[in-house]
Amino acid sequence: MLYTEIPSQRPVTPLLDKIDHPIQLRQLAKNQLVQVADELRQFILYAAGQSGGHFGANLGVIELTVALHYCFNTPSDRLVWDVGHQAYPHKALTGRREQLTTIRAKNGLAAFPAREESEFDTFGVGHSSTAISAALGMSLARRYQKDPCEVVAIIGDGAMTAGMAFEAMNDAVAHNADLIVVLNDNDMSISCSTGGFAKHLAAIWEKGQSVHLHEDGTAYIQDYPEWDYNSRLHCSATDAADNLFKAIGFDYFGPFDGHDVDHLVQVFEALKKRKGPRLVHVYTKKGKGFEPAEADQIKYHAIGKLNAQASTHTAPKYSDVFGQWLCDEAAQDQRLLAITPAMCEGSGMVQFAKQYPERFFDVAIAEQHAVTLAAGMACEGLKPVVAIYSTFLQRGYDQFVHDVALQNLDVTFGIDRAGLVGEDGPTHAGAYDYAFMRTVPNIVIMAPKDENECRQMLHTAYQYPGPAAVRYPRGQGLGVDIQTQFTEMEIGKAEVVAEFNTQHEDGITILAFGSRVSVAVEAAQNLSVEHDITVRVINMRFVKPLDEQIIQRFVDVTQMFVTVEEHAVMAGAGSAVNEYLAKAQLVKPILNLGLPDQFLAQATHAEMLRDCGLDAKGIEKSIKQAWLNVVQLV
Amino acid sequence: MLYTEIPSQRPVTPLLDKIDHPIQLRQLAKNQLVQVADELRQFILYAAGQSGGHFGANLGVIELTVALHYCFNTPSDRLVWDVGHQAYPHKALTGRREQLTTIRAKNGLAAFPAREESEFDTFGVGHSSTAISAALGMSLARRYQKDPCEVVAIIGDGAMTAGMAFEAMNDAVAHNADLIVVLNDNDMSISCSTGGFAKHLAAIWEKGQSVHLHEDGTAYIQDYPEWDYNSRLHCSATDAADNLFKAIGFDYFGPFDGHDVDHLVQVFEALKKRKGPRLVHVYTKKGKGFEPAEADQIKYHAIGKLNAQASTHTAPKYSDVFGQWLCDEAAQDQRLLAITPAMCEGSGMVQFAKQYPERFFDVAIAEQHAVTLAAGMACEGLKPVVAIYSTFLQRGYDQFVHDVALQNLDVTFGIDRAGLVGEDGPTHAGAYDYAFMRTVPNIVIMAPKDENECRQMLHTAYQYPGPAAVRYPRGQGLGVDIQTQFTEMEIGKAEVVAEFNTQHEDGITILAFGSRVSVAVEAAQNLSVEHDITVRVINMRFVKPLDEQIIQRFVDVTQMFVTVEEHAVMAGAGSAVNEYLAKAQLVKPILNLGLPDQFLAQATHAEMLRDCGLDAKGIEKSIKQAWLNVVQLV
Repeated sequence: MLYTEIPSQRPVTPLLDKIDHPIQLRQLAKNQLVQVADELRQFILYAAGQSGGHFGANLGVIELTVALHYCFNTPSDRLVWDVGHQAYPHKALTGRREQLTTIRAKNGLAAFPAREESEFDTFGVGHSSTAISAALGMSLARRYQKDPCEVVAIIGDGAMTAGMAFEAMNDAVAHNADLIVVLNDNDMSISCSTGGFAKHLAAIWEKGQSVHLHEDGTAYIQDYPEWDYNSRLHCSATDAADNLFKAIGFDYFGPFDGHDVDHLVQVFEALKKRKGPRLVHVYTKKGKGFEPAEADQIKYHAIGKLNAQASTHTAPKYSDVFGQWLCDEAAQDQRLLAITPAMCEGSGMVQFAKQYPERFFDVAIAEQHAVTLAAGMACEGLKPVVAIYSTFLQRGYDQFVHDVALQNLDVTFGIDRAGLVGEDGPTHAGAYDYAFMRTVPNIVIMAPKDENECRQMLHTAYQYPGPAAVRYPRGQGLGVDIQTQFTEMEIGKAEVVAEFNTQHEDGITILAFGSRVSVAVEAAQNLSVEHDITVRVINMRFVKPLDEQIIQRFVDVTQMFVTVEEHAVMAGAGSAVNEYLAKAQLVKPILNLGLPDQFLAQATHAEMLRDCGLDAKGIEKSIKQAWLNVVQLV
Repeated sequence: MLYTEIPSQRPVTPLLDKIDHPIQLRQLAKNQLVQVADELRQFILYAAGQSGGHFGANLGVIELTVALHYCFNTPSDRLVWDVGHQAYPHKALTGRREQLTTIRAKNGLAAFPAREESEFDTFGVGHSSTAISAALGMSLARRYQKDPCEVVAIIGDGAMTAGMAFEAMNDAVAHNADLIVVLNDNDMSISCSTGGFAKHLAAIWEKGQSVHLHEDGTAYIQDYPEWDYNSRLHCSATDAADNLFKAIGFDYFGPFDGHDVDHLVQVFEALKKRKGPRLVHVYTKKGKGFEPAEADQIKYHAIGKLNAQASTHTAPKYSDVFGQWLCDEAAQDQRLLAITPAMCEGSGMVQFAKQYPERFFDVAIAEQHAVTLAAGMACEGLKPVVAIYSTFLQRGYDQFVHDVALQNLDVTFGIDRAGLVGEDGPTHAGAYDYAFMRTVPNIVIMAPKDENECRQMLHTAYQYPGPAAVRYPRGQGLGVDIQTQFTEMEIGKAEVVAEFNTQHEDGITILAFGSRVSVAVEAAQNLSVEHDITVRVINMRFVKPLDEQIIQRFVDVTQMFVTVEEHAVMAGAGSAVNEYLAKAQLVKPILNLGLPDQFLAQATHAEMLRDCGLDAKGIEKSIKQAWLNVVQLV
């Protein structure tokens, strides 16, 4: 069935309602599976409308998920979902159907598979391309324990470009591991897939032949009829004589229609008769069965809640501020090139990509490569900008250290989604970037207090003739005016943004970083009134180099320093302030506020900040408590 | 010529002596190149004997290096060497011949290509598998600037297994970039190559056909006669119908004999007639031309200086302590599996691999996969141990965060080469691991004061039912007795190791981490005498969780705390102590000693520590200076 609307009422799903465990699915007759899939699709449409969240990929794997749980003896057999954008149908079939409307909300289901949530979630995921490694680990562990089971990794074509997937395939063959990899080829990552691998998959499809399986597991070649996968044509290639998976040593089967649930069941049953590393290549369509999503797969990668209140907050997103800056800077400087690891939309680069196609490089999901590619470009005198989420920079860390920082190359990093990210949960939090970056020499690290400062900092980082990073939060700015004209900031210079109750000589100095500056000001005002002391707030701007002079300047009139940041306290920006006080032998009380030493479950961004005591009220409360102790001691 | 001895006298090299720039090489007649190569080989044998250092790989690329500099217009054309184990001949031909005997020494040539050393060193390398990304960046930059040149990446088969190389190939095809990749296939990384990729290369060789080039750049197929590459037979495969490089979209040429300099010149000249992504597959032999190295390629990966004084230091290496622990723990616990990313020898695992082949997993150069493979094994109730150098863990950082720490899985990390590493220089220093690990929740981090504690800590980490890491330095222990019996340590418990001049109530408390404990004791003794104060040294043992109680216990009798560690001060272990003092509102002078905020050029490990003020004398001096200020303030 092709649906055109997201239902606002729970659809009627008689078969699905009986499945609280896949055992109940496996008790159905094969000819009922088409109906199960249809009901599941309707239900997913409904549930995603209620909760918002990842959408297209989930609709694309309905039939695949039904077939997998029908053929494999889950949870004893292991399904390892890559990325996890595609796990809603899996959650619905494994006892979590009615909770699915709570997905991504506080105390609701996690956005991705999570081991603590269900025994069916064999491996927690969030970042892509880990499934084959994890599944191989399980398979080898079970072999070693002489207790083998079927282990199936399901991975998208977009995720397959990340080198890690290749590393895992290489190793699976080394061990001749009993492992099934289902390549869910929808010709997309979040954006269109790109690169030699995508061309290769297109070439396989254009060849018009499948490697099929007899019931006993033996293989045969069969022509297949024309399918409607127009989207593939944009990257058609001519030669599929060489099969990459076979070259690396996998048995290859497919391509198959990933929406033909009956055939998928046949295939999986036959596959169980074979051993060793096996790859099944299925074509699916992102957004399958929902007309608008089939038509615009990028837009429907994720959706908002059906009845979400329209935001009254009109300030631009930081991503868009980045995107606009990128276009404007590029207009002024021919040397600017921009790189994204498959996050063109998320990073706000759509306009840039249109305007400067020859300067835009989507390198696919390949963070390691993205960073070193930039380093290579910088060696030739160009000025590359890498747009990357904080959490994904963890994937390119070694390259950041060696290829950029050690060589002191002129690469600018626009680090998006830094801090907490709300509904995507702990796998996407950018809570560690200050720590892993600031320990490395040569790098300049900035964090803006608002969207205008973000723009000016990006400009400053770009003008700085070495490696420099600007890290900014998820979501919208404060609504301040954005100055079109660029103003370069002095490297390592902070600013005093507020001083309350200045008639006192002594008081509290709050050293605030990035997104926490504005709320620190709010807290400061209240504190200054309540305790009748001076409270000043410094927008530190630079985590590295730290503005040591401004700390020095206020040290005599400060009875307590406070640092506040949207980053782990451990090894964070406040910790850098501590180091300076120690180095300068300034012995002063200091309070470090930031994220606690734990992985934080999803909620809205605002809820998470509040729970961590990093909203204005929480900051005020923590400072008050510490201040009372300081006063007592004095 | 096949040589059997490393010459102790500078060989006579009349042709080579004339080459101070590749231009002079290019002025020679083609038929002189065999002699150039022979002279270069003799010279490299001599120079490596003088300096010690990487050996086998350099001997393997003599002819390749001569042919590349002969055919390409370096430095205008770009040669990008991967890893850099193989750059000695390149350095010798590019004006650095007579300095080659100083390689790896303080103020001598860098161990690897280094941009600041020569314009011929287009990209600094140390870690493997970056060359294709960097070269692609250069090629795309030059295309964008409408100033194209030839860009050639030279990468070993061992390095090609790292996913990053695959990411780069995928992207090169996306851009149809003008790029030559020379796959230097010597069937080895440092250990034997492993995995599907190695099998694939063997299959190509066994096919007995090469893709050749006519002078005009057109291709043709030719059978080749049998070559003597016996080492390949251990991983022979049967099917080479599918060529991986062609599948991904590269033009493929080869395999060719990488020691036939005349033929290589022909090949490279013809290749220049073509455009787009081209891969040339050459077979070489590690240690080529030196009989003992050809016979034992692993042993001769690197050599010591010819006339090095025999060490009188008989304490075991930390790597060997790890290796022995691994065997002993495995004997007691069937659940132990051990993983190495291609560092079996370096990590001290040879004995384990022999004794427990079914529990030993060399996953090839694939750090990302190594970490997630371990996570997958842990999901099945086994207890994997990942042996990895600190610097290489940077490659698996995201996997460390998400796949292990976030899921709180029971994986033990044996982190070798932590701190400074001496002659390998800044690319191999393990100076950042405390910072990037301790900011992450759930992880336990330990550092031993000596080799016995290393063993007991590894046991403790292994027994701990979550992620735990022990980081230990390069080189030998202190020579203490190693207790065979395991003693589990209490998590988060430090120990007082020395108290001098205890009749005073007040004084200095040194919180020392890992390798700096013993020298801190030395410094403490001198300080206590000189200033007539109490100086105590605490072996902190745990960077996370920190022993807060012991700090609390001594705070009242401490006028100044000192932290000392072999790690960057920034965000390091001392910084964790600062955070605790701040959190507990303990306002005390504290001095953080550790590595400075700069990349440190190579020297011996001892020289580097001295230069950083981290030997006993340096520590004493820094503390004295800070103490005088503290006394003044009091």
